[in-house]
Amino acid sequence: MQKIPHAVINPIKSLNLLSRAEIEGVTASRGELYELFRSCALAILNTDSNKDDAAQIYADYSDFDIRVVPQPRGLRLELTNAPAQAFVDGHMIRGIQEHLFSALRDIVYTDFKLLTANQCSTAPADTTNMVFRMLRNARIVQPDVPPQLVVCWGGHAIPREEYDFAKQVGYELGLRGLDIVTGCGIGAMKGPMKGAAVGHAKQQVKSGRYIGISEPGIIASESPNAIVNELVIMPDIEKRLEAFVRLAHTIIVFPGGVGTVEEVLYLLSILMHEDNRGAIPLVFAGPEQCRGYFEELERFLVACLGEGVRDYYQTIVGDPASVGREVKAAVAGVHGRRRERGQAYYYNWDLVIDPSLQQPFVPTHDNMAALDLDPALPPAALASQLRRAFSGMVAGNVKAFGIEQVRRHGPYRIHGDPKLLRSMDALLRMMVREQRMKLGECEGEYKPCYQLA
Amino acid sequence: MQKIPHAVINPIKSLNLLSRAEIEGVTASRGELYELFRSCALAILNTDSNKDDAAQIYADYSDFDIRVVPQPRGLRLELTNAPAQAFVDGHMIRGIQEHLFSALRDIVYTDFKLLTANQCSTAPADTTNMVFRMLRNARIVQPDVPPQLVVCWGGHAIPREEYDFAKQVGYELGLRGLDIVTGCGIGAMKGPMKGAAVGHAKQQVKSGRYIGISEPGIIASESPNAIVNELVIMPDIEKRLEAFVRLAHTIIVFPGGVGTVEEVLYLLSILMHEDNRGAIPLVFAGPEQCRGYFEELERFLVACLGEGVRDYYQTIVGDPASVGREVKAAVAGVHGRRRERGQAYYYNWDLVIDPSLQQPFVPTHDNMAALDLDPALPPAALASQLRRAFSGMVAGNVKAFGIEQVRRHGPYRIHGDPKLLRSMDALLRMMVREQRMKLGECEGEYKPCYQLA
Amino acid sequence: MQKIPHAVINPIKSLNLLSRAEIEGVTASRGELYELFRSCALAILNTDSNKDDAAQIYADYSDFDIRVVPQPRGLRLELTNAPAQAFVDGHMIRGIQEHLFSALRDIVYTDFKLLTANQCSTAPADTTNMVFRMLRNARIVQPDVPPQLVVCWGGHAIPREEYDFAKQVGYELGLRGLDIVTGCGIGAMKGPMKGAAVGHAKQQVKSGRYIGISEPGIIASESPNAIVNELVIMPDIEKRLEAFVRLAHTIIVFPGGVGTVEEVLYLLSILMHEDNRGAIPLVFAGPEQCRGYFEELERFLVACLGEGVRDYYQTIVGDPASVGREVKAAVAGVHGRRRERGQAYYYNWDLVIDPSLQQPFVPTHDNMAALDLDPALPPAALASQLRRAFSGMVAGNVKAFGIEQVRRHGPYRIHGDPKLLRSMDALLRMMVREQRMKLGECEGEYKPCYQLA
Amino acid sequence: MQKIPHAVINPIKSLNLLSRAEIEGVTASRGELYELFRSCALAILNTDSNKDDAAQIYADYSDFDIRVVPQPRGLRLELTNAPAQAFVDGHMIRGIQEHLFSALRDIVYTDFKLLTANQCSTAPADTTNMVFRMLRNARIVQPDVPPQLVVCWGGHAIPREEYDFAKQVGYELGLRGLDIVTGCGIGAMKGPMKGAAVGHAKQQVKSGRYIGISEPGIIASESPNAIVNELVIMPDIEKRLEAFVRLAHTIIVFPGGVGTVEEVLYLLSILMHEDNRGAIPLVFAGPEQCRGYFEELERFLVACLGEGVRDYYQTIVGDPASVGREVKAAVAGVHGRRRERGQAYYYNWDLVIDPSLQQPFVPTHDNMAALDLDPALPPAALASQLRRAFSGMVAGNVKAFGIEQVRRHGPYRIHGDPKLLRSMDALLRMMVREQRMKLGECEGEYKPCYQLA
Repeated sequence: MQKIPHAVINPIKSLNLLSRAEIEGVTASRGELYELFRSCALAILNTDSNKDDAAQIYADYSDFDIRVVPQPRGLRLELTNAPAQAFVDGHMIRGIQEHLFSALRDIVYTDFKLLTANQCSTAPADTTNMVFRMLRNARIVQPDVPPQLVVCWGGHAIPREEYDFAKQVGYELGLRGLDIVTGCGIGAMKGPMKGAAVGHAKQQVKSGRYIGISEPGIIASESPNAIVNELVIMPDIEKRLEAFVRLAHTIIVFPGGVGTVEEVLYLLSILMHEDNRGAIPLVFAGPEQCRGYFEELERFLVACLGEGVRDYYQTIVGDPASVGREVKAAVAGVHGRRRERGQAYYYNWDLVIDPSLQQPFVPTHDNMAALDLDPALPPAALASQLRRAFSGMVAGNVKAFGIEQVRRHGPYRIHGDPKLLRSMDALLRMMVREQRMKLGECEGEYKPCYQLA
Repeated sequence: MQKIPHAVINPIKSLNLLSRAEIEGVTASRGELYELFRSCALAILNTDSNKDDAAQIYADYSDFDIRVVPQPRGLRLELTNAPAQAFVDGHMIRGIQEHLFSALRDIVYTDFKLLTANQCSTAPADTTNMVFRMLRNARIVQPDVPPQLVVCWGGHAIPREEYDFAKQVGYELGLRGLDIVTGCGIGAMKGPMKGAAVGHAKQQVKSGRYIGISEPGIIASESPNAIVNELVIMPDIEKRLEAFVRLAHTIIVFPGGVGTVEEVLYLLSILMHEDNRGAIPLVFAGPEQCRGYFEELERFLVACLGEGVRDYYQTIVGDPASVGREVKAAVAGVHGRRRERGQAYYYNWDLVIDPSLQQPFVPTHDNMAALDLDPALPPAALASQLRRAFSGMVAGNVKAFGIEQVRRHGPYRIHGDPKLLRSMDALLRMMVREQRMKLGECEGEYKPCYQLA
Repeated sequence: MQKIPHAVINPIKSLNLLSRAEIEGVTASRGELYELFRSCALAILNTDSNKDDAAQIYADYSDFDIRVVPQPRGLRLELTNAPAQAFVDGHMIRGIQEHLFSALRDIVYTDFKLLTANQCSTAPADTTNMVFRMLRNARIVQPDVPPQLVVCWGGHAIPREEYDFAKQVGYELGLRGLDIVTGCGIGAMKGPMKGAAVGHAKQQVKSGRYIGISEPGIIASESPNAIVNELVIMPDIEKRLEAFVRLAHTIIVFPGGVGTVEEVLYLLSILMHEDNRGAIPLVFAGPEQCRGYFEELERFLVACLGEGVRDYYQTIVGDPASVGREVKAAVAGVHGRRRERGQAYYYNWDLVIDPSLQQPFVPTHDNMAALDLDPALPPAALASQLRRAFSGMVAGNVKAFGIEQVRRHGPYRIHGDPKLLRSMDALLRMMVREQRMKLGECEGEYKPCYQLA
Repeated sequence: MQKIPHAVINPIKSLNLLSRAEIEGVTASRGELYELFRSCALAILNTDSNKDDAAQIYADYSDFDIRVVPQPRGLRLELTNAPAQAFVDGHMIRGIQEHLFSALRDIVYTDFKLLTANQCSTAPADTTNMVFRMLRNARIVQPDVPPQLVVCWGGHAIPREEYDFAKQVGYELGLRGLDIVTGCGIGAMKGPMKGAAVGHAKQQVKSGRYIGISEPGIIASESPNAIVNELVIMPDIEKRLEAFVRLAHTIIVFPGGVGTVEEVLYLLSILMHEDNRGAIPLVFAGPEQCRGYFEELERFLVACLGEGVRDYYQTIVGDPASVGREVKAAVAGVHGRRRERGQAYYYNWDLVIDPSLQQPFVPTHDNMAALDLDPALPPAALASQLRRAFSGMVAGNVKAFGIEQVRRHGPYRIHGDPKLLRSMDALLRMMVREQRMKLGECEGEYKPCYQLA
């Protein structure tokens, strides 16, 4: 494990024109924020590392330190014992350098600017506004570039054929000049970007955008892949999801685990709101081998949300070029719709997002037990309840808080309509069977963190 | 007087990526700010007009109206009965369009952003910070362009040979790749820009900068000249002066009236502060005919501030090329100094400006009578007192408030050391003789608004 | 008269990527071509000089020398005793430097490339091809820039109000984004460029083109004005005229002398060719004072070429904005026509130019006496005959060869139809009266070099 | 096998500003040149095809046709039955489109321009000049970009670990901002480009250059890989080799077969010329598994050319980062050397290339038998003789002419110094053993086309 004992890094694009007050504001923040920044920085410096064991990385680099140093003209970073792989001949790789300052900008500087100034309102409009301001500050939204952003969701740890398929889809998107937005990690996050980079190169597109939207909890344990050329770190998971859907001109979902289902339900809850009809085209896509996966998913969605749910997405199996064509057409449709209604291309201000989706769901046993999984609810509301159920399962599987709850109180008990629960059970069994359930810390057979009552 | 009955204008560069909250903030401001914006807009639309009688313009266009209209994607302006000269074949001239949005940005939007948010602190550091933020927002300070800004001061209504000289100097500056900053009006404000434009063209410099720094009270009565390609409107005279000195890499003073002397004293008060030694090179320049003017000015400065004052400037008479050479060398010297000390090139954060210079001086008779014109004061402090005296004379000559005071209470009485007052008297007599005293509203012989006790 | 004893100049854009053979080809040419290049270079170095007496300049700088020095990477120029005004602080002004290499490119390098290789065919298609290749090599024709070139013709030594009018017209053209092509000298060559530069600046057009098309005989006695930012030197007058008409999207003619009438006849001879109908819009323009001038010109044209000639031009007097509007519309019309017919925008290949117009006319007394000024000729052919008559008068007035002929053999005798000759006489008398006849070397009253039989 | 029945393609960058004569010249060429262009075009349209069997491609697309159609503004191409994979949604992929016009430019247009005009001299200086002019016309040499070109040579059909190593080396070169030049095919031609593309992306280098230098005989049977973004087709193998060495700032040789050895000997023959000392740094590089390969190669080189040959290259095994570092340093060294000597960066005019290396070697049995493999020759001369021997073996293995010779007359008989022949034999045996000898058409064991006498 090679380390660079000492390195001084200057900003490239972000943060290179600060006022004195801003410089002081940033360098004054230590404590909690500083810890967060340090762990994000370490993840970024491990970009493309083969190691994906966050705990191991933190152990290996326990002597890593990063300091923000005020300068007359701005800021610089001083690093101690940084991973050598982020450097070439003593110079930090430029993309990594840029990501480092993006993290500083979004974690420390944004905190200083937005939170101090605005006293952190949680009103829906204020949340939407804050998401916009962060994206504008990160230059993700730009006035002069007509964006064509395809958001790709799906699993991290996926089999080779699914990764190759995602890459093929990215290639077809890149050939059509479309840009990619993902959660910035590996698997279905990386494949589409890597493919798009080749497609862009063949079309001599030099301005291809590979946007990674992360949040501190995620990036700290998962290095951004090397293709990402625009990185933004949103303050929490809900703002990250809102950023995805307000930026997206079309969303593709590749196969994944309970986390992916949670995202699908979040999106359907929005799309089924009557004011959002047709706002975001949605495509389920995978290789031929995944046909069964999407059939099972559809069975579940229809059972819960009714036959009408089929109107909100299309499924394309085994044909990347067809995904490319359909998505290109869908993006053009979204552009037409925005033009017609006089809406901005770069940010979907008009998308209605229910406040329940903006607020974090805390997966206690009480909260899980209290979920209202009732087919009589309007589909949008039921989708929101279901999303919480899957959010809880994600937590019970892999997040510290959820694991602890389950350890103490046993599996979550989820109540609801029996038919609905049976569908959910079928979906979950398929995921266990296909090894899409992350095992968390322990090896061996998957032991469910939930009980469908 | 041709008018365009109705026109809709979209933003070009400024204000083209606003959040919903920002759009609402801007369109909500009416009342006082709106009036201010309307009168500035009218002045801008009269760019390069032969008429310099503001009152006449406002009378002619009393039916002019301008409205800020929110758009899903930003803002636009709707104009009623706008001056036809701002349009070509129905399209607004692009430079004027840009200035219009600069005014909106600086008057309405900045008000909304800075003042609402910051509760308008008047602490020196906060003032300096606010000046910086406005300049950054107007893209006057830019991170990647190494600036070479020559600030030019001098009279508005000047004789032809002085205008031609200023233009010659501008030409020599342009040939040397230097950029120009002025108060953005006519006379010594316009000459250097016009000359520099020719110099830049000969050198095939396409990025020449002609920066106009104005404030609402000035721009409303004085249209920006047509060469200005970057316009910023500071909130008041003091912030405008601070913007000049923190941006300047060298300052040239052409002959002018009491207003110009006020500026010279403001600058000397700063330069003579011990921490500012050598911070801003200062050149007095004029045609051969002005030799006497500068001798009289020097006599006055030496009498008041001592022989040492000669160290703070050099005088070049009748040789524009020599001014070009000296200023080029001076700017290079400033760059070297900043580099050496690790200071920013684009904004002189380290310049110490006494709080007394940041705060407006209200020219009542009491305040004028209380001025402490005592040779025993440290030169910097005495310069500051003298600046106030000349500021009062400007007001008594041409500003509504001062004229009213003098009408009611007779000439200002200025007390002080007899030798000092004699020097001041000699300078003022020369200015009267050379018709550099603006007569205000009444024709005929100049009637002093002051009495040296 | 200040001189720079020694200076070494490197190429900026032109000639910076030569093969060894090309370098050798250029440096090998001495003798006649070298003399031509030296005198052009001297003229260019006097850009914007107040002196327009070529003979005086050559006398003053008889010790000036310029040498082409081969370099491993290209060429450089070594200058001895060059005019100091072409330099700023020891560095040559960039625009002048560029012009110097343009001259080298067009005189020496083009000679080497085109003439050596092509054995100098005089077939019409080859002439047209050579004109194109020189313009392409000079980057006057460019593939990606949609050109909007307005060619301006008119007198050199014109009264102030005509110059101001031409400048006003240029301003209106610049406001409308149009570019200017002229013969690159002073008077009606400079006014439109100077005005357009201001118009472009107001519209924030940074890519304004001010193209000067010269030829060795002209440039050697007439420095290019300082606004010209693209200079090309055609091998002779006929190729220069062909360059004008194949590049033009519209032509404006300001008042001038016999040279201007020659150009008008050249153009009408082309326009009246049936295959060229409507190919180039033509506008006669001047201040109110010139109304009589254009009436007299029209009277002459109608008398010679018939009432139908009025269809080939329009006359606008005293209204620069109206010229701007009409020319803008005319250029749009030409673009539409080219698009419709699938013709190139940048070079009018399809314009039919009679071989008689491509070949020089030598003004001997025999040739002048043999002109066939017969109203029975087709108008295009008669226009061509008339052009030669005026070409001869230009020569008799100001060119060495013509002056010598007249000195030896007395005035040229021009024969033809009496009515036609009377019209010509009336036009010429008006020109004498208005002092539009250049007096050549002798002072005093104009003594005609022609006799209308 | 999908085909596009009919498509019309317009030029992007090349050939978009032609004179009428040039258009006619290009469209007039049919016959032999046309056939050549058609087969190159077909290869280009199969870019990145999995099929590398040229014969099969030509059979599959026997109904493919391509026509050059003159346009008023330039040229366009009309394609019949073109491979569908070159198109996306009916539009040709931009990179392929560009390559198509590069081929037209280099094959047809260059033929018209250079050969017609210059009567095809074969003098060494003229050859060098022609190579330069083709590279300039293809914009491979550019005046303003300081080039850093690393030429990579090596085998086509190489094992996975060698390909991965070449890719790793490319990545390290890309991280250091270096650009890649190869023969534009697969294997060691593609690996370095693909790796460099990732390295450039990480460093946010958007102007990465991936230059492919081909010649008609090669490209027609071997599609350019998809990374190539600048393609030039030289007229024959010798001019292609000259292009490589005059462009190179450093050359890396990966393991390959007899063709690669031929290239090494060509290069050593040049480097060992006394005037070329140190002109081109040379690095042999491969994965750990190739250690034996390079040892055997060195044994051969030392045996033939003496111990001194070791001074002309270094060998780096198993350490891509080290290759990156060394090459970066070597390129910097070359830049320094050129600067010092006032030599051009973009084209090594001063490299002395013996005429024997510029002329094709025709591998008849007589010529092969007449080779002078005598250790007493100066090393440069001996290397040139050895190159011919290997050139003959390449022909005997895979080229139509050579195979036919061997079929008729049996293996080539190569005479020479016994010790030298033994070394050659050892090297060749190793290559047979490692399956680096292309088998040509017949399967099974390699049957040598040579006999070492």
